[in-house]
Amino acid sequence: MPNFKFAGRTGRMENPIIRQLLRLGQREGVISLAGGIPAAETFPVEEIIEASRRALERWGSRALQYSPTEGLAPLREYVARRKGVRPEQVLVTSGSQQGLDLIGRVFIDEGDEVLVESPTYMGALQAWNVYGPRYLEAPTDADGLVPAGLPDREPKLAYVLPNFQNPTGSMLPEKRRESVVAWARRRGVLLIEDDPYGHLYFEEEPPASLQRRCPDGVVYLGTFSKIIAPGLRMGYVIAPDEIINMLAQAKQAADLHSQAYGQAILAELAEMGVIEKQEQRTRNLYRRRAEMLLGLLRRYMPTGVEWSPPRGGMFVWLTLPEGVDTLELFEYAVEQGVAYVPGPVFSASGGLAGSLRLTFVSVPEEQMEEGVRRLARVLREALASAG
Amino acid sequence: MPNFKFAGRTGRMENPIIRQLLRLGQREGVISLAGGIPAAETFPVEEIIEASRRALERWGSRALQYSPTEGLAPLREYVARRKGVRPEQVLVTSGSQQGLDLIGRVFIDEGDEVLVESPTYMGALQAWNVYGPRYLEAPTDADGLVPAGLPDREPKLAYVLPNFQNPTGSMLPEKRRESVVAWARRRGVLLIEDDPYGHLYFEEEPPASLQRRCPDGVVYLGTFSKIIAPGLRMGYVIAPDEIINMLAQAKQAADLHSQAYGQAILAELAEMGVIEKQEQRTRNLYRRRAEMLLGLLRRYMPTGVEWSPPRGGMFVWLTLPEGVDTLELFEYAVEQGVAYVPGPVFSASGGLAGSLRLTFVSVPEEQMEEGVRRLARVLREALASAG
Repeated sequence: MPNFKFAGRTGRMENPIIRQLLRLGQREGVISLAGGIPAAETFPVEEIIEASRRALERWGSRALQYSPTEGLAPLREYVARRKGVRPEQVLVTSGSQQGLDLIGRVFIDEGDEVLVESPTYMGALQAWNVYGPRYLEAPTDADGLVPAGLPDREPKLAYVLPNFQNPTGSMLPEKRRESVVAWARRRGVLLIEDDPYGHLYFEEEPPASLQRRCPDGVVYLGTFSKIIAPGLRMGYVIAPDEIINMLAQAKQAADLHSQAYGQAILAELAEMGVIEKQEQRTRNLYRRRAEMLLGLLRRYMPTGVEWSPPRGGMFVWLTLPEGVDTLELFEYAVEQGVAYVPGPVFSASGGLAGSLRLTFVSVPEEQMEEGVRRLARVLREALASAG
Repeated sequence: MPNFKFAGRTGRMENPIIRQLLRLGQREGVISLAGGIPAAETFPVEEIIEASRRALERWGSRALQYSPTEGLAPLREYVARRKGVRPEQVLVTSGSQQGLDLIGRVFIDEGDEVLVESPTYMGALQAWNVYGPRYLEAPTDADGLVPAGLPDREPKLAYVLPNFQNPTGSMLPEKRRESVVAWARRRGVLLIEDDPYGHLYFEEEPPASLQRRCPDGVVYLGTFSKIIAPGLRMGYVIAPDEIINMLAQAKQAADLHSQAYGQAILAELAEMGVIEKQEQRTRNLYRRRAEMLLGLLRRYMPTGVEWSPPRGGMFVWLTLPEGVDTLELFEYAVEQGVAYVPGPVFSASGGLAGSLRLTFVSVPEEQMEEGVRRLARVLREALASAG
């Protein structure tokens, strides 16, 4: 019998904590403020039925045949138009997660330094861990990445989420964007700009992207998951041609190309004007829910628990007084009927146990108050026994 | 400015020959017998429009939300039923190409030995090269892999295409299947069985798969690309639970999950009976085209050019007398208005220059005779100058 000897890199793939958290949080009766998924009621189901029919009527079997690795022309053109780049700079990916994986594949040698924010998006860590980087962490505050905290080093990549960061919800102001780009230019560091939430602003549109400021030094990740639907698995990368070519080569080996049918559907949705309409609609819904959650936090959270109101996106980041470990507390919270995401999940070094992430978008509105009440009770107890 | 230093593994990703061939073969006026794509006229466009509507009406936003990495339950259940395994043994992938990549990712350490047939499917080499294996080659004849040629070694993986192999079209007979499985058991080697064409038999159904014969020692790759449509990017892996779990973990980091909508569409097509109908329909068309091509080869090919009639699948493999190099000849052939795939593309060691692959499925029937005539003329000239 074969003994299934797995490759060495599989030892870096596991993250048993996250898997266990996800399982626990799905228990019957638990109100989950932990989700990282968009509100399903925003998905334009009727429009997608219509766009599917139109896509097949217009494209016929071309929407069903093998197609170019880089993506279908009308979708690349739409993205290029919206983002102010050339279509050749756009690679369609199977969700942003694939973009992250392909970036790891073409850039990260074992032991390479990769700078991430603290906290940062766990999916990026998951995508890159398999390639064996060493992470450097840059500090953040309520305005995102702190430029003064950028290291005197030249990491291979620096990963930044400037718009309504996951998990903190922070937005990087104009001046910090300039500083980050200046640091990257000076150090010769390639910036990876992840922007799943840029269209989900509550007040004014965010400042221009890092990619716009430094087109030859930034790899930009976008997605349709948060605006149309994640189940379509459609994202894109914008980068200088040389990088797009290498990423496309990696993608060809990984899955040949992203689904042609889904790309054709998105091109139809774009032509039907559905994408912009969805952006507006989702913004409005998420703004309302954010206000609802923030009101409840103000009302129920014990003194000492802090947060900054997000200006877009899907998340609020809570910081607790010394002495409470959100990872240790998690199982008890679930027993008490509420789930959140503990801070260490977002840390490249396993820190941030004094923080947690809440979402306001996927929890049913009628359960939100009870969820916050339960969480407040759990935190109050923990603070009492910590104090 | 960043200098875009790519990872070392990117040096193993390039295959400039294949890229150049593909470009050349697409020239205006060239009749391509080189294609590796299904006949687009078989795609069930109307049925997919219907299944798309049904999928969204039945599944609603669940077909558009993030979904389990392993795949949607009804699709896994359908595959399990057809293949005689448990649904837990099925992982839905973004085409078979992703299955190959994930296998490389979880099994191949740099320098590991991987046994492949000579010739073998180029897409597998492309998927695995990035992981840096050393290939061992096993000889094949008109009946596929020659068991007596299997090495006295224990490669990490042994990759076999038993049904209508790409590129040779050969089918591994019952007895050889037993011998291959016995060798793998004896040596403790994990078999990778790639079966994109098993349903495309022209006469009787092929013997039971290696997976059926040795469920705990085989990773089986299947796909809907050749029966429904490749543009849906839907394939699957069948393997022991422990391997499925590891592949799913790798897939989660690579792209979270395959498109939920496409999976729901396939589940509907299965329920509508479209998949089995398509198998029949595609078999009939391909059988007719194979006969057509074989008749033309008999009529036009110069003496000394040899082939074995395929018993299914999409390809015929031609072997030429000594002295002709199909790679060198390719550019001239394209100038003469015909394209094929040179043998070395299917060789892990760059050999097989005396062979070439033809397809009979994607060339328009009315162009087939002229294509074969051009190819015969080119080969006749080459043989004359070689002799």
